[in-house]
Amino acid sequence: MIEAMILHKARSVKEASRVLYTCTTAKKNSLLEAINDRLHDEISNILHANKKDLKNAKQNGLQKVLLDRLALNEQRINQMVNGVKDVVSLSDPVGIIIEKRRRPNGLLVEKMRVPLGAVGIIYEARPNVTIDASVLCLKSGNAVLLRGGSEAIHTNKKLVEIIKKALQDVNLPTGCVEFIDTTDRKAVQLMLKQEKYLDVIIPRGSQKFISFIQKNSTVPVIAHGEGNCHIYVDSSAHLGKAEEIVFNAKVQRPSVCNAAEKLLVHEKIAAKFLPTIVSRLRQAGVEIRGDKNVCSIIKNAAPAQDADWYKEYLDLIIAIKTVRNLDDAIWHINHYGSHHSDAIVTSSKIHGERFLREVDSAAVYVNASTRFTDGFEFGLGAEIGISTQKLHARGPMGLAELTSTKFIVHGKGQIRK
Amino acid sequence: MIEAMILHKARSVKEASRVLYTCTTAKKNSLLEAINDRLHDEISNILHANKKDLKNAKQNGLQKVLLDRLALNEQRINQMVNGVKDVVSLSDPVGIIIEKRRRPNGLLVEKMRVPLGAVGIIYEARPNVTIDASVLCLKSGNAVLLRGGSEAIHTNKKLVEIIKKALQDVNLPTGCVEFIDTTDRKAVQLMLKQEKYLDVIIPRGSQKFISFIQKNSTVPVIAHGEGNCHIYVDSSAHLGKAEEIVFNAKVQRPSVCNAAEKLLVHEKIAAKFLPTIVSRLRQAGVEIRGDKNVCSIIKNAAPAQDADWYKEYLDLIIAIKTVRNLDDAIWHINHYGSHHSDAIVTSSKIHGERFLREVDSAAVYVNASTRFTDGFEFGLGAEIGISTQKLHARGPMGLAELTSTKFIVHGKGQIRK
Repeated sequence: MIEAMILHKARSVKEASRVLYTCTTAKKNSLLEAINDRLHDEISNILHANKKDLKNAKQNGLQKVLLDRLALNEQRINQMVNGVKDVVSLSDPVGIIIEKRRRPNGLLVEKMRVPLGAVGIIYEARPNVTIDASVLCLKSGNAVLLRGGSEAIHTNKKLVEIIKKALQDVNLPTGCVEFIDTTDRKAVQLMLKQEKYLDVIIPRGSQKFISFIQKNSTVPVIAHGEGNCHIYVDSSAHLGKAEEIVFNAKVQRPSVCNAAEKLLVHEKIAAKFLPTIVSRLRQAGVEIRGDKNVCSIIKNAAPAQDADWYKEYLDLIIAIKTVRNLDDAIWHINHYGSHHSDAIVTSSKIHGERFLREVDSAAVYVNASTRFTDGFEFGLGAEIGISTQKLHARGPMGLAELTSTKFIVHGKGQIRK
Repeated sequence: MIEAMILHKARSVKEASRVLYTCTTAKKNSLLEAINDRLHDEISNILHANKKDLKNAKQNGLQKVLLDRLALNEQRINQMVNGVKDVVSLSDPVGIIIEKRRRPNGLLVEKMRVPLGAVGIIYEARPNVTIDASVLCLKSGNAVLLRGGSEAIHTNKKLVEIIKKALQDVNLPTGCVEFIDTTDRKAVQLMLKQEKYLDVIIPRGSQKFISFIQKNSTVPVIAHGEGNCHIYVDSSAHLGKAEEIVFNAKVQRPSVCNAAEKLLVHEKIAAKFLPTIVSRLRQAGVEIRGDKNVCSIIKNAAPAQDADWYKEYLDLIIAIKTVRNLDDAIWHINHYGSHHSDAIVTSSKIHGERFLREVDSAAVYVNASTRFTDGFEFGLGAEIGISTQKLHARGPMGLAELTSTKFIVHGKGQIRK
């Protein structure tokens, strides 16, 4: 019975989370080291499991790009190992006092970071997430219930088996990491109703999938949604810098959420800037869609539809629009954007500051590529993902964002009058 | 059509939130001053509206305690005015930089507090919440959609009318505060589905009501749930202090969420401590329920059922249990408690620290009454409520907890390699 299985695993994770709640940093690090040792020892077993998944995926006609995401090799496993080492070296957020107030009645009121408890993670084809996400949760004192993509089930099962052995090595409950080892889609539905045992669910996937989770979950969700990212080139922009930034943001890795999808250009500089950048983008294989103005400047640009302005392409496509001024640009981004990452290129300090203040996105940039929206690049050490919601965490989420807080109050017998 | 009305108001709040997003502190304070001026000028109109509500409520046979919550008089309106003045004097969280990192590539990455956007508040009979909650939301740059208790509808309509006049006085959109002026229960259902326009919903009310909201909302919720609060009296406790703390936590205001509902006593001191505290509690009209041990020490104590240990009484009732040691007490609190506020009375530093660390509640105390869990008492200046969830805000929520954050990144043309 799948209901009983999910309930059992959610409970198991909750119980184990009580043990992790008070785990020392040294203990958690020794667990991570044990995971690494075991990963290293079992490379051939992991690759063997991965071959099964790849074989099935090919038989099921999985797209080439997804096959690539699914495939492991020795190098990729070594990358996982290095990722775990990085997390060992990060400082533990748990137990840190982030606020402190002495009250007139003598009470000392402190706010301390504590683990969230039991975290549910729902993700797709990449098996490295099984290790990366587990390790970040464990280091921040959280137990984790994993639900990976069905294509990677053999690999994921093997990886979780390895984590469980490592948990035994250091004498921690194996329930600290549980894995839902069925490809039945009902499992996700059931997981979303475990509000009694799970403290949060972090879904990774398409916007449609995430909307489904948000609409159906009784557990609080931290959504990792889409990025319809903009670059606005202001009239005062250094055009050489603008060209580099637009090209980088669009072309360097077009399939990720922080890649630029839209280019807004001040009408004064459009005739000068557009031909150069468009020719460079086209050489890199980028399809150009434009508003009326842009289409009159650039030959053979497809006219952009209203739907284009809302769209995350995740592909070598860019839609370009001219704007009359900074206000227009800010309005357009706040109205059509997905509030992920947006940049202005400008030489005006005032325009830069207005853009940073008025654009309501998880990450706003002056004179840099949107591609930097990432936990490592922002200096968080690692990331579990990029939150596109406003509650709890917004933008790249590191270890601190995997914690809650509690007030701890030191008294000497105070009572309330 | 109620659907159209809710949609219209949710949209209106969202649009107004864009204006508030960039409002200066001075502007927001001038709005609060205008609200105060208008409240002062319209005291008699407010009382007139309140009389209508009171008349209806009496006709509908509303309980006396609820009638008291509903009733306004000049003194209570002056309390509202003073509350608004307090919020004027609080520092504005918006625009504050809370993290700052210079990256090796020269990027300066800062994390800035920004308004959440559009906040939905669902509350019950007290009309002062209409002013208190609106003012806290406005000061933190948020627009607000209010849904008050149907008993207070005339008073609430009048109060919102006053806020809207004040918004006009300072030339801000009247959509900054919208009120759902129907007693139709369907309104709440519809409000919970406005995820396109509302950024968060904060419900205040019974646990049953809040569970309903959590299960039905597609908008993120910050729950203000129940408090099944514990006092644990350790073997080393100063019994005089313990008596004062237990008495205060149970009796000073038994109807609120931070009042104690359970007393755990170390078995070694039970025979000495219990007769004194029980006799004092009984003199104050408190009903005693006890486990087997307690019933053998105390005459005429009702035997506590298993359900008692989970219960929030909000009444002059306390359930008492003896425990063998600190571990037992911590286990009991984490297992049966509601993770709101829990206290230990002890002279042992080690026991105090273990309790603070191991009890997983929004507020944990050593040697003080649980009654202090409150935004004013904790030094936050004011509170919109007490969150009992772990995401975003936990415990008393002040202005800072009504904000989100964004990353602002200052570059000089950096692109990602």
